[in-house]
Amino acid sequence: MNVAVIGAAYTKFDEHWEKSLRDLATEAGAAAIMDAGITGRDIKALFIGNMSSGRFIGQEHLAALVVDHVGLTPIPATRVEAACASGGLAFRQAYLAIKSGQYDVVVAAGAEKMTDIKGSDAVATLMGAGDQEWESATGLTFTGLYALIARAHMQKFGTTREQMAMVSVNNHKNGSLNPNAQFPKEITVQDVLNSPMIADPLTLLDCSPITDGAAAVVLASEEFAKRTRSPVWVLGSAQASDTLALHHRQSLTEMLATKVASKKAYEQAGLGPEGINIAEVHDCFSINEILAVEDLGFCEKGKGGRFVEEGNIARDGSKPINTAGGLKSIGHPVGATGIRQVADLVRQLRGEYGQLQVKGARTGLALNIGGSGATAVVNIFGAEPRNNR
Amino acid sequence: MNVAVIGAAYTKFDEHWEKSLRDLATEAGAAAIMDAGITGRDIKALFIGNMSSGRFIGQEHLAALVVDHVGLTPIPATRVEAACASGGLAFRQAYLAIKSGQYDVVVAAGAEKMTDIKGSDAVATLMGAGDQEWESATGLTFTGLYALIARAHMQKFGTTREQMAMVSVNNHKNGSLNPNAQFPKEITVQDVLNSPMIADPLTLLDCSPITDGAAAVVLASEEFAKRTRSPVWVLGSAQASDTLALHHRQSLTEMLATKVASKKAYEQAGLGPEGINIAEVHDCFSINEILAVEDLGFCEKGKGGRFVEEGNIARDGSKPINTAGGLKSIGHPVGATGIRQVADLVRQLRGEYGQLQVKGARTGLALNIGGSGATAVVNIFGAEPRNNR
Repeated sequence: MNVAVIGAAYTKFDEHWEKSLRDLATEAGAAAIMDAGITGRDIKALFIGNMSSGRFIGQEHLAALVVDHVGLTPIPATRVEAACASGGLAFRQAYLAIKSGQYDVVVAAGAEKMTDIKGSDAVATLMGAGDQEWESATGLTFTGLYALIARAHMQKFGTTREQMAMVSVNNHKNGSLNPNAQFPKEITVQDVLNSPMIADPLTLLDCSPITDGAAAVVLASEEFAKRTRSPVWVLGSAQASDTLALHHRQSLTEMLATKVASKKAYEQAGLGPEGINIAEVHDCFSINEILAVEDLGFCEKGKGGRFVEEGNIARDGSKPINTAGGLKSIGHPVGATGIRQVADLVRQLRGEYGQLQVKGARTGLALNIGGSGATAVVNIFGAEPRNNR
Repeated sequence: MNVAVIGAAYTKFDEHWEKSLRDLATEAGAAAIMDAGITGRDIKALFIGNMSSGRFIGQEHLAALVVDHVGLTPIPATRVEAACASGGLAFRQAYLAIKSGQYDVVVAAGAEKMTDIKGSDAVATLMGAGDQEWESATGLTFTGLYALIARAHMQKFGTTREQMAMVSVNNHKNGSLNPNAQFPKEITVQDVLNSPMIADPLTLLDCSPITDGAAAVVLASEEFAKRTRSPVWVLGSAQASDTLALHHRQSLTEMLATKVASKKAYEQAGLGPEGINIAEVHDCFSINEILAVEDLGFCEKGKGGRFVEEGNIARDGSKPINTAGGLKSIGHPVGATGIRQVADLVRQLRGEYGQLQVKGARTGLALNIGGSGATAVVNIFGAEPRNNR
């Protein structure tokens, strides 16, 4: 059975001092429902991705909070969590729930309110995505983990600081056109290199920000979706795991979970990396976009830096990436990001994304990563359904 | 397609000072796999229920932690959360994942390590299951919320303190036979009434304890399950939501989510409350078992206290409930409880539960509740599959 995304929206990603998490989730959910042209009564279940509302705002049981606040009780509401991949997982659970035949219309949302606690506490909370007993205890932060990855990639493949900076430059250039981006402004390679050092070699502008925001998409069965104005079809969906701690990996310079998940998703979709027109990848740190283009097969392993430098990821390049700004420019409310990626692909594949539109985009891939790569979720979308599924 | 549970296990529920959450989850998972007579290579995905590892032990991204520690990477691993219903939800997601056709063998686990922080912090953490902005801010604890429910039930229906105490007495009597119970000892009505007052009218022995523990079950497609030694069949599975805050409810004395979820599960199973031989219900506080027997339709609304007093819930009664000790005697590691309930039903329906065996049990129901009733999950099991599904 084919499954489609029939509605998509996200709030402005920002520091929202006057809105709580329930407000943001409701705003995104209502906008997605409006976008789908359906009503709340059509919705049979809700999934929400959130990493750490317990620590950020003292609130667990988040799916019940949201389904209550949006007035959709008694439908089932489920929170899923896999650190920064929570949104991608929420999407995948909604997809499986429709495939199971139990529901025909399901909302997948993601939300995170990160600015209600002080910055150092937010950094400690985010480190909950890594191995608390073996990594956090040594004083590692997430920037520190990705700095280790960056150094290894530089040493092994000759990747340069400038190439990493070009990732941030590309994504900010795209994000400068996105009214929902937290930092909608262009930056230069020199800006990145000159910004404060966070964990050598990563500077402030290699790092995605701390953000409040929510995103929501509506998924539907083929039968229901065909009656809606502009369905975008799920061609493949897969998820994989890797060791939680970085020091247990065979290699620091590739993400096994990305490779396993994308291989499965490509098989389901019946196309390979060359068949993907655009991609949303997980640029939590600039180096991670370089790993992503390699591990997704967009270029050879070790050539990611050059792939970026040659302009392939630009809007008019061979493989436009993070066409609405990515985590770097749009912001990274961790649980919301995976759903935001899907929402941006849906708009692109509908061909209705205004000044952000990439011409001719008919297929798109979203890669959402949890922690330093222990979870990877890959979803592939098409403007048309795959016929033989 | 029928789905079965082919393996089940749980650790001793206790204060585990020398084991971490990953140790407990691994112990339960390995035992469940052994019980199923399969190997780790058969397992295609993992779901784990956990309420608040972020606050209890500083660790999010729990599914990746566990799948890594048990050596099953790169299979997909997903954490789900709905407060104390997290385990029931993990079971349900595993069930839907098999129904979707993507996997044939899936592990559903639950784990919580609650004793690594001090008691008052544990109480505050548990209150994350309620409405943080509107309930916690008034100083309410979970015992306080259930005390309000108890007072309303006493006033409206004449339910007595003694009847509530009899719930704890029944469950401890059953738990006294369970070597994995945290408090395997018999108590009397007088013990309950004389124990320290926590939130009037609930005393210490009306309340389930704070516990460390993990539970795991293996689910399989019909085709796979038929090749195993003792499958127990899922006859129905449903989930529903209610308002997060107690003060938004139409009634304090019934749980709408339980009623909605059980109605759906009964329909799927093709049987009603009278067709259920035994049940595991969510006795987080004694009053909640009284609401449960009413809302599940085992007796009329308002007659739950009398139903208990008349001995119906005893091992040799008309509807044996919490036959292995319930949350009260076995303990309540919140994310693990929903899976532990399933594990106890599986053992009963196999007819292999030794001194805990209830004779002639062929069907069983598990009710797992999150918070003060904002989430309810009902799963119904049978010794035989339902033929017409």
